Amino acid sequence: MKHSRRRFLKQAALRVGTGASAVAAAAASGAVAAAGLGLATPAIAQGLQRWHLVTSWAKGSAGPGTTADRLAARITAATDGKVDVRVLGAGELTSPFGVLDAVIDGAAEMAHTASFFWAGRAPAASYFTTMPFGLSPQAHSAWVRFGGGQALWDETYAPLEVKPLMAGNSGANMAGWFKAPLQSLASLSGAKIRTAGLGGEIYRRLGATTVTLPPTEIFGALQTGVIDAVEFLGPFSDRSLGFDQVADHYYFPGFNKPNGTAEALINANLWASLSDDLRAAVQNACDAENDAGLAEATWFNAQALAALRAGSTRIEALPDDIVEAARAASVEVLADYADKDAMTRRVDTSYRTALEALSGWERLYQG
Amino acid sequence: MKHSRRRFLKQAALRVGTGASAVAAAAASGAVAAAGLGLATPAIAQGLQRWHLVTSWAKGSAGPGTTADRLAARITAATDGKVDVRVLGAGELTSPFGVLDAVIDGAAEMAHTASFFWAGRAPAASYFTTMPFGLSPQAHSAWVRFGGGQALWDETYAPLEVKPLMAGNSGANMAGWFKAPLQSLASLSGAKIRTAGLGGEIYRRLGATTVTLPPTEIFGALQTGVIDAVEFLGPFSDRSLGFDQVADHYYFPGFNKPNGTAEALINANLWASLSDDLRAAVQNACDAENDAGLAEATWFNAQALAALRAGSTRIEALPDDIVEAARAASVEVLADYADKDAMTRRVDTSYRTALEALSGWERLYQG
Repeated sequence: MKHSRRRFLKQAALRVGTGASAVAAAAASGAVAAAGLGLATPAIAQGLQRWHLVTSWAKGSAGPGTTADRLAARITAATDGKVDVRVLGAGELTSPFGVLDAVIDGAAEMAHTASFFWAGRAPAASYFTTMPFGLSPQAHSAWVRFGGGQALWDETYAPLEVKPLMAGNSGANMAGWFKAPLQSLASLSGAKIRTAGLGGEIYRRLGATTVTLPPTEIFGALQTGVIDAVEFLGPFSDRSLGFDQVADHYYFPGFNKPNGTAEALINANLWASLSDDLRAAVQNACDAENDAGLAEATWFNAQALAALRAGSTRIEALPDDIVEAARAASVEVLADYADKDAMTRRVDTSYRTALEALSGWERLYQG
Repeated sequence: MKHSRRRFLKQAALRVGTGASAVAAAAASGAVAAAGLGLATPAIAQGLQRWHLVTSWAKGSAGPGTTADRLAARITAATDGKVDVRVLGAGELTSPFGVLDAVIDGAAEMAHTASFFWAGRAPAASYFTTMPFGLSPQAHSAWVRFGGGQALWDETYAPLEVKPLMAGNSGANMAGWFKAPLQSLASLSGAKIRTAGLGGEIYRRLGATTVTLPPTEIFGALQTGVIDAVEFLGPFSDRSLGFDQVADHYYFPGFNKPNGTAEALINANLWASLSDDLRAAVQNACDAENDAGLAEATWFNAQALAALRAGSTRIEALPDDIVEAARAASVEVLADYADKDAMTRRVDTSYRTALEALSGWERLYQG
């Protein structure tokens, strides 16, 4: 183990009592270990811990950002401040995609992010956010909690020494915003699209060029024409980022991301060192936010959709030939992906078995 | 207020340290107030509380029963036993439908049940479980958490002095088990069906006779021919109760109960007396179980459906004329129901507004 329990307890001691200005200064200098001086001993004597929760989202941003804030508040309130969680938005302590390393290194105790950002380091991680033409939010949660998904997720992340938990859900996504209308499959040829997850590879096979950008950089890139299109989340988050101000065409269904599970990451040594009650409190808070985050996304997606419909946005179904081509491409893309390594193959098999069983039940009750 | 905070604190003091045998004896004699002797003062001095959680389900029964057990375990673990919750199944302290009064009277601190059981005392309560042709589980949670539903639910229950929270979900239901096949609408004429919720009134208008029975009594009634059919939950719970052993025809979709929100009830004075951290811990546990309960129902419904398909059960779509007649009847039934009183009218208006907005979004992302 690279990071001992002792190191974590020492860091926790250093951090308790750290003011916001000290954190900001530390973040600016990069000297995280220097943050927090004095006032620590009495707090630790009472069993208090201060956690920094780093996120891949701008602080307080609609959807994932508010989920991260509520998650921190739930833990802090239910533990009566024994675990006092402070949220840091993207760029405050680390970059949006730096949050995993921050938790691995112990620079932050916890992160709120999405597993598919780590596909380059652990390909199997992709499945725990969403897969093209894959599980719905409700089915994904069923698979993780009762279909063996959590054990496979833990195993995927074990080499990184972080503990993953579901902690929010942005719901089903839309297919994306395009500046120019899509007439047919040919319209995708050469289009530059910001994507995340495996949907990007499908868009590439359909002729598009894709780029990965953190949420904080998308609007500018779309506005200036660096990209022609963006696939992010659903109407709630997308509208809050202003995409409707710079693109007119909004397509459904979101074949690329039919689900949007957010993940909480906790340093594995810290997780192991927690007393049973604190571990239960963190687990309850993450589970609770998994429910509340999806509820929030669902409610505000519906409201934002109505507002977009009342504005200048054209909300349209993808042309049939695009959906057909995407489905055909997805079969190849996903089969190739599953072969990346043994862990990915095992997760793929579990995911596909769950998808088949759960889709049968969903088709039936949806009438 | 009939039940003072002081009374609750005194009862809590009496209960801490109560052994199972004392509870059983108290339940048998009906003398709940006599339960618990001695050993109380040191525990209370440490701020410990023992809560009895009464349920409308048999202890440990598949679905709602396991949700109740997990809910208790979540609270107990996350509070390090400061709130030590003990689950009592239907019939242990009260009858299945006696749990509301037990919480009102202070005989139990908490219940796990379903709001539509209380429609006779507060008609608006029905909406907080499910309504025919109404909100899906995901949409229901969105309405309660972000669409104003919780405030209306609190107001509905305020005269009873209980606090309601969502705490589990059995998912979409099936239409029901029938001993004889349904050929057409005429097949319902005179059929005796066990139902719960407003679906019963619709079945009545289609020519059936309906009865209300608690879950624990359904199997026997179906086996002996007291009833010809039963609508309960989905494949997971229904199969665990053995309905497939005594009826061959299982129909979908469950127009009568498209959602199955379980409720936690807490005595309002106890809720108000809790410290902020304990209140947050209980809220997190209920929210968490709302997610986990639905995940469990979804996963095991899919498994049970496959098992039933492999057995002798005929899983069939309701004849079209029944669905059409049910939809037409539901419009009348629900309009009449909304007129019961001013509170019900307000809840109905809120529910319908949410249903329209959320259905638009759901239709879109489901493709």
